[in-house]
Amino acid sequence: MQPIGRRAEVKPGQTLLDAAREGGIEMTALCGGEGWCYGCRVRLEEGQLSPLTDAEKNGLTDAELALGYRLACQAVPLSHVKIEIPPESLATAQRLQVEGKEAAAAVDPVVHQVDVTVGEATLHDLRADTIRLLDALGSPEEIRFALPVLQTLSPTLRNQEWSVRLAIRDGEVIAVAPVGTPMLGFAVDMGTTKLAGYLVDLATGETLAKSGAPNPQISYGEDVISRIGYTMTHEDGAATLQRRVVETLNDLVWRLCAEAGRETRDVVEAVIVGNTAMQHIFARLPARQLALAPYVAAASEALTFRASEIGLALAPAAYVYMPPNIAGYVGGDHVAMALGTGAWESERTLVAIDIGTNTEVTVARGGHVWCCSCASGPAFEGAHIRDGMRAAPGAIEKVQIVDGVVHLKTIEGQPPVGICGSGIMDVVSEMYRSGIIDRKGALRPDAAGVEQNNGALAFTLAAAHDTGHGRPITVSRKDINEIQLAKAAIRAGVEILLSEAGATYDDVDEFIIAGAFGTYLDLHSSIRVGMFPSLPIHKFSQVGNAAGTGARQLLVSKARRAAASRLSAKATYVELTIHPDFSRRYMTALYFTAA
Amino acid sequence: MQPIGRRAEVKPGQTLLDAAREGGIEMTALCGGEGWCYGCRVRLEEGQLSPLTDAEKNGLTDAELALGYRLACQAVPLSHVKIEIPPESLATAQRLQVEGKEAAAAVDPVVHQVDVTVGEATLHDLRADTIRLLDALGSPEEIRFALPVLQTLSPTLRNQEWSVRLAIRDGEVIAVAPVGTPMLGFAVDMGTTKLAGYLVDLATGETLAKSGAPNPQISYGEDVISRIGYTMTHEDGAATLQRRVVETLNDLVWRLCAEAGRETRDVVEAVIVGNTAMQHIFARLPARQLALAPYVAAASEALTFRASEIGLALAPAAYVYMPPNIAGYVGGDHVAMALGTGAWESERTLVAIDIGTNTEVTVARGGHVWCCSCASGPAFEGAHIRDGMRAAPGAIEKVQIVDGVVHLKTIEGQPPVGICGSGIMDVVSEMYRSGIIDRKGALRPDAAGVEQNNGALAFTLAAAHDTGHGRPITVSRKDINEIQLAKAAIRAGVEILLSEAGATYDDVDEFIIAGAFGTYLDLHSSIRVGMFPSLPIHKFSQVGNAAGTGARQLLVSKARRAAASRLSAKATYVELTIHPDFSRRYMTALYFTAA
Repeated sequence: MQPIGRRAEVKPGQTLLDAAREGGIEMTALCGGEGWCYGCRVRLEEGQLSPLTDAEKNGLTDAELALGYRLACQAVPLSHVKIEIPPESLATAQRLQVEGKEAAAAVDPVVHQVDVTVGEATLHDLRADTIRLLDALGSPEEIRFALPVLQTLSPTLRNQEWSVRLAIRDGEVIAVAPVGTPMLGFAVDMGTTKLAGYLVDLATGETLAKSGAPNPQISYGEDVISRIGYTMTHEDGAATLQRRVVETLNDLVWRLCAEAGRETRDVVEAVIVGNTAMQHIFARLPARQLALAPYVAAASEALTFRASEIGLALAPAAYVYMPPNIAGYVGGDHVAMALGTGAWESERTLVAIDIGTNTEVTVARGGHVWCCSCASGPAFEGAHIRDGMRAAPGAIEKVQIVDGVVHLKTIEGQPPVGICGSGIMDVVSEMYRSGIIDRKGALRPDAAGVEQNNGALAFTLAAAHDTGHGRPITVSRKDINEIQLAKAAIRAGVEILLSEAGATYDDVDEFIIAGAFGTYLDLHSSIRVGMFPSLPIHKFSQVGNAAGTGARQLLVSKARRAAASRLSAKATYVELTIHPDFSRRYMTALYFTAA
Repeated sequence: MQPIGRRAEVKPGQTLLDAAREGGIEMTALCGGEGWCYGCRVRLEEGQLSPLTDAEKNGLTDAELALGYRLACQAVPLSHVKIEIPPESLATAQRLQVEGKEAAAAVDPVVHQVDVTVGEATLHDLRADTIRLLDALGSPEEIRFALPVLQTLSPTLRNQEWSVRLAIRDGEVIAVAPVGTPMLGFAVDMGTTKLAGYLVDLATGETLAKSGAPNPQISYGEDVISRIGYTMTHEDGAATLQRRVVETLNDLVWRLCAEAGRETRDVVEAVIVGNTAMQHIFARLPARQLALAPYVAAASEALTFRASEIGLALAPAAYVYMPPNIAGYVGGDHVAMALGTGAWESERTLVAIDIGTNTEVTVARGGHVWCCSCASGPAFEGAHIRDGMRAAPGAIEKVQIVDGVVHLKTIEGQPPVGICGSGIMDVVSEMYRSGIIDRKGALRPDAAGVEQNNGALAFTLAAAHDTGHGRPITVSRKDINEIQLAKAAIRAGVEILLSEAGATYDDVDEFIIAGAFGTYLDLHSSIRVGMFPSLPIHKFSQVGNAAGTGARQLLVSKARRAAASRLSAKATYVELTIHPDFSRRYMTALYFTAA
């Protein structure tokens, strides 16, 4: 079964869903396999399945059926089959991984390692230790030694009997170690909420260990604007935010090294990707101007500096690379995502999108790239929604309303305590589909489950006696409105970039959705509420943490770094707030109407 | 009067010595102008003087007379005259200066400054601050910004209304300042005893301020070997020695800036020259292997690193340059000296020598350079001599023995309390000339002033009632021996290098003596004891602190840095301890015999 590459035995008459479960693959099946939640969509790649059931004919679009989509709870293999399980059909267990697509870049790291053996110094051979090594390397003119290396070189050379491994970066020796020591890299996707770290063998590109940690800056502000505010209102605010994240990364890389049986002193290169504000704060660049119009970055080019300059505890002369950004709100993480998915290098017409408080959108077409940032707000992170919450146990993540009856799925199957981002999208989509709200988002007072609540109408998703905290979970007009604002901003941004690129929806070959939230998003709900255009479902790709994948590619590939700089330099950034079409498209996109 | 460029009115009949005194120029005149100490040698450059006196005919060699040398106490101007006063004829007041020859290198600094004005950022011009500046510079590809600059760039740009001065070094912007701010450099001659610092305007090459400070490392060891020992026997020894000298330099540069009305944040480049061990300790390079055979340097190439990497408080992204060394005991200061005097670039045959505990010698001939280090010991610094002392008030610095009567000159005219390096050379020379010691250095028991003292013969230089401390000042066989060992080491080193270069003394066009001690040395005494060969006196140049001059040249001239690297790479280092001729020449040179 793709993409996880697992094999499962299928007993005669057993459905794909049951076989998957027995094989340890947890799929989305809100309805328990009854065929009404359409959560277990899979695609037949090879072999033969039982004929389509009525449930499948109802739940799948003609386009999906044409592409071979089936419901795993309905289909029974009639032969050896090969099945693709789209990410949205995989349940919680797989979601907590930091994994995106594996890095596919050719290994061509900025740091290479070389083992050197030299003759011992004697009164008849008085060359300095450095010259002795450079002579052995055969290129004395072009290579220099970093000061921290010189500070340990002489005793290391003598302790290692005149044989050492050197790590050389751009003509500079940045580490000395016993012969054979593998040189390591540390890639970090530095999200506003979560840090994902990868320990990589620089010579092979292999990921030796990976792990995540919460971003400790969250206690100083949920989003980047409030964190920038903290740096402006507290004298040591910038230093504090920077120190906290560096401390966490120091701990993270130490843990990764311990897990892989390596030493942090052998980590000679780091790649840190984040949005523009996060990268600024990390490098102690002033972030104030990112919070004030016209929101320009202090620097947009790729930055390279010593890890020691910002307190990162790697090899003493290790360097940090941060990819270029494209604008104040289209950051290095978006560039890394575009690289990680290979999107921008394609000859086709592509939309790539990373949904968050700010949603970055890239459109690639005909060798050029357009980018924008949409102020989608924090609704998808559960904020500004009365019963909203982050994706945590007990969060409602999938909803179906069938004949007025609400079916819920919560994370880890706990009693519901709130609604996370993917859940709220489902709720609104189902409320619209069931006629509980109209196309403007207004609640119908006569719809089942809609009641007056503190003087305003609200729809009850879970009654008090069914929840984990004993209070009802409801959805108000204001909650609906937050989702409308968010999805309209994203839809308007996509449309404006496509029109700048001279393209229509029909031209779109692939619609890539990156990031954690985008991975869990139900595509059908997203299309039904109008956030995404109604493209054939196979044109959508939910690629997971592509920024982390891009970060690892940047760690091991000089070519990818060059590509990142080219992408940043050639991209046309479109500032939506001053675009003449923005208001019109935004107002139109507020309505619920799949088109 | 040269080299100090002072003019003096001369009254009719007045000697040059009297005129100089009235003009504030303090010359050596041990005999009070009576014509027997020969200390006030000057050279007539233009004009006419009174006929030679008998004193001049006795005191000056034929070669000196042929070159126009006179005694200032005897010669009376008969016209407007231009007079050169050699450094050895200048007295104490001038000696405490940090000055060598003025830097003559063309100003071509590694850091150049450029003023840039850019358009304000608006919603219609969203370029990052860096890109805005790079576009204005017209070379976006080749220039990058140092991290510390990025950390202040954005507010500076806005506070300065989008006009700033950038300091650019090797394609890297290392400082941002208000338009017109002169960028500064800091050159340091880091001696084992004394630090000499110069604040230089990088654009003009002008020295804005200069000052000296004692090297605080002296309290951890008088010489480099004892300081390296300290780093080996104390866990934090290397860190302590490094920190102490950095603290002193931070204070020194701060004082220089205060004196010149500048700010240390505008000091964007430093050049630090010292002997190999001093440079190693300063950069925290391991020095242990410099104290153990075969005494090789960790690094011999020029080193460049951020000032912040070693705690030097200059501009946050300033760099430090340290010139290459030639061997473990022929350091960057000797390279700087060779550059400062222009010696090594000459087509002629040259000897250049810097006398100290280790005396470095360079011979240049036919486009090649030979170097060695002579273990001359600390006798010239007053150590290992019973009544020896450093050059301080009350130190005997000039001695004449006329008809068995001892005439002394002390620093600042204080009652004598000991003998400094230049004094001990005079003492030994005069004792030999007067027959008090024989050519083997043995005291003649029957000579006037020679007495038994604690079972050994000693010569009384000053009786107890004539000294500042009420004890006699005497010279023993052991004291004589120390000088013999020192001068023999130097003489043997010079001879071996000349023979390596295929030259004899007759081939030597110039014999350059650098450094503080070398400046005060009496050439006649030095020749008489056999430390220097008996060349015509005009071939000797006493050039003062040429290392400091070289350091300033390296600060303002990229060409000089390239020259330093070429010099270090092409020099042939001769290890005296394993040279087959060393013992023979050294044994021969122990005798007193001017030849």
